[in-house]
Amino acid sequence: MVRLPIYQRALRELSSEGTATVSSAQLAEAAGVNAAKVRKDLSHLGTYGTPGTGYDVTFLLGQVRHELGLDREWQVIIVGMGNLGHALAHSQRFSTQNFRTVALFDVDPAKLGEDVDGLEIRPLSELSSIGDTCRAIGVIACPAPAAQDVSNRLVDAGVGAILNFAPTILNVKPSVLLRNVDFAVELQTLAFYVVHPEALSGPGGGS
Amino acid sequence: MVRLPIYQRALRELSSEGTATVSSAQLAEAAGVNAAKVRKDLSHLGTYGTPGTGYDVTFLLGQVRHELGLDREWQVIIVGMGNLGHALAHSQRFSTQNFRTVALFDVDPAKLGEDVDGLEIRPLSELSSIGDTCRAIGVIACPAPAAQDVSNRLVDAGVGAILNFAPTILNVKPSVLLRNVDFAVELQTLAFYVVHPEALSGPGGGS
Repeated sequence: MVRLPIYQRALRELSSEGTATVSSAQLAEAAGVNAAKVRKDLSHLGTYGTPGTGYDVTFLLGQVRHELGLDREWQVIIVGMGNLGHALAHSQRFSTQNFRTVALFDVDPAKLGEDVDGLEIRPLSELSSIGDTCRAIGVIACPAPAAQDVSNRLVDAGVGAILNFAPTILNVKPSVLLRNVDFAVELQTLAFYVVHPEALSGPGGGS
Repeated sequence: MVRLPIYQRALRELSSEGTATVSSAQLAEAAGVNAAKVRKDLSHLGTYGTPGTGYDVTFLLGQVRHELGLDREWQVIIVGMGNLGHALAHSQRFSTQNFRTVALFDVDPAKLGEDVDGLEIRPLSELSSIGDTCRAIGVIACPAPAAQDVSNRLVDAGVGAILNFAPTILNVKPSVLLRNVDFAVELQTLAFYVVHPEALSGPGGGS
């Protein structure tokens, strides 16, 4: 299921090119995975395609988006408005649908009040008063030493999911979803596969 | 093997706290994975620990670092010095070992010549003359429309691995390792698990 976002992007590109139907082999190539995996993943959606014709792109895109929860809107709260926070706020605005950045926080007095694409950077102390967060994802883009405190504040504010870019291991209660993105870990993983190319052909290989 | 970087970070934290030995349960907690997975992963390294005592932290850290290829130096080349490129250049400097950023490139005349932590931003046209790249990882932090061209230039320059932050699917020859980090995909994956919490207990679940 971790490949659904990749299929979604490939299907959107095919759809924007005016492609009406796609074979599992074509979708596999567009998504950069093998065709057997594509057929298996899509069969989990209850979708099997028409033999000789393939999958209807618009219908399949709708199914994938529903499965991903993208037929509803998600709010994004970014804490830490250094270079990374700015990059995330911008990429948000330009590249995703159904995710809307609703609040930006920092502790640096020099940053407070700055307008980023129409949103003002607010003091972290105001995070607790942000209101309805049941469909909110908290994004941690602050330095590592502050990340656990920020995580606690996001959880206290009612956020159900956290995307953590700080290079540290966070403790959150089990009911909160946590996903970590660590630049150093990504580099280390690449270095590992350069040293151990044979590991790529095993289970769990590939990117 | 994708968990080795996580173990490395946990072991470094334990080591810096002066911890000499660690049980699989303690390492599992520090790394945020279950103890059975830890024992299985470490047995692949040929490491089994001492019953009743656990693993020697320093020895295990050395094994993990060797397995990750971190007992040699890797060079990092960043292309695209907007907010994300700056954030990566800074995080590089502060949070990783054995990865050294050696060159920064952009096409924006306003950015060329800017000093970022002692490295000058150079014109992309100079990428082809960068020299020895056999242990180099190219990092793509440019906008999506330029990413395939940048990828081609990195491959032509001899880079063996690419970490792509641009939200687009790149085509590279099979001998080049490609890893994608896409902010939108991360958000979509979190949204999927919020909608389908039952999927977390299945294979491939978790962060």
